[in-house]
Amino acid sequence: MPTPLSGIIPPLISPLKDRDTLDVAGLERLIEHLISGGVSGLFILGTTGEGPSLSYRLRRELILKTCQLTNGRVPVLVGITDTAFTESVNLAKYSAEAGATHVVLAPPYYFPAAPPEMLEYVQDLVAEMPLPLFLYNMPGLTKVSFELDLVRRALDMPGICGVKDSSCDMIYFHRLIEIAKQRADWSVLVGPEELTAEAVLLGGHGGINGGANLHPKLYVEMYQAAAAQDLQRTRELHAQVMKLAGAIYTVGKHKSAIIKGIKCGLSLLGICDDHMAEPFHRFREPERELIRERLVALGLIPQG
Amino acid sequence: MPTPLSGIIPPLISPLKDRDTLDVAGLERLIEHLISGGVSGLFILGTTGEGPSLSYRLRRELILKTCQLTNGRVPVLVGITDTAFTESVNLAKYSAEAGATHVVLAPPYYFPAAPPEMLEYVQDLVAEMPLPLFLYNMPGLTKVSFELDLVRRALDMPGICGVKDSSCDMIYFHRLIEIAKQRADWSVLVGPEELTAEAVLLGGHGGINGGANLHPKLYVEMYQAAAAQDLQRTRELHAQVMKLAGAIYTVGKHKSAIIKGIKCGLSLLGICDDHMAEPFHRFREPERELIRERLVALGLIPQG
Amino acid sequence: MPTPLSGIIPPLISPLKDRDTLDVAGLERLIEHLISGGVSGLFILGTTGEGPSLSYRLRRELILKTCQLTNGRVPVLVGITDTAFTESVNLAKYSAEAGATHVVLAPPYYFPAAPPEMLEYVQDLVAEMPLPLFLYNMPGLTKVSFELDLVRRALDMPGICGVKDSSCDMIYFHRLIEIAKQRADWSVLVGPEELTAEAVLLGGHGGINGGANLHPKLYVEMYQAAAAQDLQRTRELHAQVMKLAGAIYTVGKHKSAIIKGIKCGLSLLGICDDHMAEPFHRFREPERELIRERLVALGLIPQG
Amino acid sequence: MPTPLSGIIPPLISPLKDRDTLDVAGLERLIEHLISGGVSGLFILGTTGEGPSLSYRLRRELILKTCQLTNGRVPVLVGITDTAFTESVNLAKYSAEAGATHVVLAPPYYFPAAPPEMLEYVQDLVAEMPLPLFLYNMPGLTKVSFELDLVRRALDMPGICGVKDSSCDMIYFHRLIEIAKQRADWSVLVGPEELTAEAVLLGGHGGINGGANLHPKLYVEMYQAAAAQDLQRTRELHAQVMKLAGAIYTVGKHKSAIIKGIKCGLSLLGICDDHMAEPFHRFREPERELIRERLVALGLIPQG
Repeated sequence: MPTPLSGIIPPLISPLKDRDTLDVAGLERLIEHLISGGVSGLFILGTTGEGPSLSYRLRRELILKTCQLTNGRVPVLVGITDTAFTESVNLAKYSAEAGATHVVLAPPYYFPAAPPEMLEYVQDLVAEMPLPLFLYNMPGLTKVSFELDLVRRALDMPGICGVKDSSCDMIYFHRLIEIAKQRADWSVLVGPEELTAEAVLLGGHGGINGGANLHPKLYVEMYQAAAAQDLQRTRELHAQVMKLAGAIYTVGKHKSAIIKGIKCGLSLLGICDDHMAEPFHRFREPERELIRERLVALGLIPQG
Repeated sequence: MPTPLSGIIPPLISPLKDRDTLDVAGLERLIEHLISGGVSGLFILGTTGEGPSLSYRLRRELILKTCQLTNGRVPVLVGITDTAFTESVNLAKYSAEAGATHVVLAPPYYFPAAPPEMLEYVQDLVAEMPLPLFLYNMPGLTKVSFELDLVRRALDMPGICGVKDSSCDMIYFHRLIEIAKQRADWSVLVGPEELTAEAVLLGGHGGINGGANLHPKLYVEMYQAAAAQDLQRTRELHAQVMKLAGAIYTVGKHKSAIIKGIKCGLSLLGICDDHMAEPFHRFREPERELIRERLVALGLIPQG
Repeated sequence: MPTPLSGIIPPLISPLKDRDTLDVAGLERLIEHLISGGVSGLFILGTTGEGPSLSYRLRRELILKTCQLTNGRVPVLVGITDTAFTESVNLAKYSAEAGATHVVLAPPYYFPAAPPEMLEYVQDLVAEMPLPLFLYNMPGLTKVSFELDLVRRALDMPGICGVKDSSCDMIYFHRLIEIAKQRADWSVLVGPEELTAEAVLLGGHGGINGGANLHPKLYVEMYQAAAAQDLQRTRELHAQVMKLAGAIYTVGKHKSAIIKGIKCGLSLLGICDDHMAEPFHRFREPERELIRERLVALGLIPQG
Repeated sequence: MPTPLSGIIPPLISPLKDRDTLDVAGLERLIEHLISGGVSGLFILGTTGEGPSLSYRLRRELILKTCQLTNGRVPVLVGITDTAFTESVNLAKYSAEAGATHVVLAPPYYFPAAPPEMLEYVQDLVAEMPLPLFLYNMPGLTKVSFELDLVRRALDMPGICGVKDSSCDMIYFHRLIEIAKQRADWSVLVGPEELTAEAVLLGGHGGINGGANLHPKLYVEMYQAAAAQDLQRTRELHAQVMKLAGAIYTVGKHKSAIIKGIKCGLSLLGICDDHMAEPFHRFREPERELIRERLVALGLIPQG
């Protein structure tokens, strides 16, 4: 009997030494940090992973190394979102060969496809997929959504196994949960960590939460409390997640503040380099110092 | 004494036989159609060219074939816009080796860079460019603009030679013209063909107009009338351009209607295949029939 | 010891006989329907109440009649949102004289005030208020939000007593809950009914939910279950609310579908007329028949 | 034979002594300043006039005083845009009685009406109008446009006499000109002053330009040059208009910068008070000093 993928599946940042060089030792430490924190899977090349900003060569290296280092301990999900259909297919095939378990697809993000065009696109693409596919709803960056009608149609496509929703629209998310009841193996996961508690309390299967890169245990415990319907404990842990996000994601002034904050924090935790791919640069010293102070206040790094 | 690039430089559609196969014979006919129509250059891999939807292999093939077929008769501009810095650089280097004359860059279109991030991005990128670079302002598809302050800074970067503006915001465009007065070789070109008349009447250097694929002579004559300050003739030709655009771009119901209309029209003119890269498909028969009727009404194909 | 306003406070539709005539008998039936359903207050002249579409004469009549008919049984909240400061003040004063208990203010919705301008505006306005004021965050219709920094500043203004949030952004809502912990009488209420369950489970004080016009008891029971931390019961009632909203709000094709659906439903329940103020018109017969079928399916009106 | 309204028709700022007190002497000076500058009409209670921010009492006073002071020398256009249909009708009737010649209507700006709803709204409203009505397209503030299909339908409504377009979308504007050719008395006017030159060169009838409050003669001369098809002179005057707008509208940091700049400038010219209605406040001293310097540089006030 198939079951939906559930739990906390962090969207890994991509450890970089420079623009086109993977920090392999950092990647290894990050993977061990996350697996020992109890996560249910690893998602690479998503938004937090700066997937669209990396060269194809680097994406393939990251896929291969992640699969080798994970070595089957947890599922590996790979983002294959691309404006070019052929490149999405190429990445999916490479992922399958490398040992990944799922692929994840947001809408093509240059041309906004209208709903009937999007349906044809998904039908065409899923026919070429060697691995189960998650739809990744991210209208803030892709301009268009996977509409609920498309999701209903996707239930009939065996190659699709669920939806990751980063729209921040919980009405949409609750409709996804309603739809999911019709397929036992269909998984509904939420992106923003501030919303994982309610997502799981009301029937969702878990979270793909960026902050879990920094503190996987906290997010896993919050998920477990919510899945166990322990409301009091969920509220306490949700408050801690809100505090972490409020501390780390508000240092930068721009929309890049979240990824920069996570990468900078991981660097301060000694896990990996915080080089960022263009169009971004890592935090400079003043912001880095603020992140350090906040990690101390959160108890994630020792005083001094 | 350097002069700005000027005139009509059509953004070529990309003739495709299927998803990843170039229609080389169609490309050759298209290039001859345009050059014989009097255009001042060819711009490939832009929005009209579905650049972001094509595989990198196909993009390189298109660059090489276009340069070979053009054989130096007019400048060849290549779109290198990409979410991955490294891929933009790779395409620019390939373009230079193939014999292109300029590269064209819109902002990376997944992550929206804030103005200070965008400035660093442009500075980093221009340092790697083997060819003069046009900034391509296209906020409707890239979410963010090249702000006027960045354009003012770009005047001091010798590697940048002008701006193509497809914002449809003529206030912004007039500010570009003001800025351009400070550099003799700086070119300001407008994207939407409905705006080329006023752009040139008031000091712009030309248009990168999609409709010129279909009827290059009309657009070239309109440009020449405006450049010669022949207002009466410009108004007549502008009315014809408005009529063509109003006829061909309103057959489809979605935002893809413009590119689909141009490709379908070129197919009906016998110039090239109208296959479209995903996420789109070519017009089906009912829309194709409408395009045929309208081309007849416009006098571009014979009755019956 | 002051306590925050809590529970279900329906945003009353405005029963109209025609463009400028109140359906007084309908208003009386609606108020009795809601109070007998257990609601904690009545909110008039909000979005669901088509407040901005009514003449000032009619708004005053509605305020007076609602206060008279309610006669102190529950609090009466009055929307005073206006683009003209003076008219907001006039409405607030009239509301106080008529016996209302609170006023509710969304940002002025023609000119978008920037954050420092908005702060001055709120400070200026609260100084003129004869009743406690709720901030009403509704960026979908007012274009701008009450930013979290403004809400933090508002904690120090004794004339402000809480926030109603209709942004659909639960991250923002959770930040409101964090902020509210600093003032014992501060109330945080959510607009969309699909979000009331999670809002209350995680610390919010209640909902201003349009669907409660139709079925107040359902919404009150869902609120009570969530406030009592009865997660299982909350999930069941939340599923019923999702079903009602999914049935009634999807008959119309435009954004007006929600208000039209509620008004049409109330007419079918025999409570009041469904005339709508311009720019809208009530549902015509085909849509009305669909609403009837769906109310039957929901068990709100008998078969046949 | 009816002719379209044409020329420069400034959207008057509303001179205020305080929140709800008209600066009558200032209004008189402003009207004389404008009429002696050669304008073709006066438009009150538009966006530049802060119409939606003024109390109804004040709007009526302003209508009456403007009509009395103008005394038939030029047409008086009155903005009647409102979210409440009844208030729009009331203002229109008052305007007719006071001696105004036209009314001007943007879409209701709280609820966004969908195209079929907007058509019904316009049909309903025009039936109640005692004066010829201009449609005022202003999607930046009203969220929705008057679509071209609606404008085509409006040609058949004798109560409507033209369109003022402030969308900044010149493609839309050129379509308006095409449509206007079908009715001899139909007027197409453009809002942003940076676009008046091209609007008139290519067939539009004039401009409703905010900057004409400060320097009516410049705008009138630019209009006349463009109407006379004197391209060289039009370009010179357009460059001056661009300079004025670039100087005065960039002092403030927010969207309110344009109206604040014009009001501050008029105060420095000795014409009227610069009090602003909430949600705005007039420029404080540092911004006022900048406006002074720029007016000096523009030659509009003497040095020192």
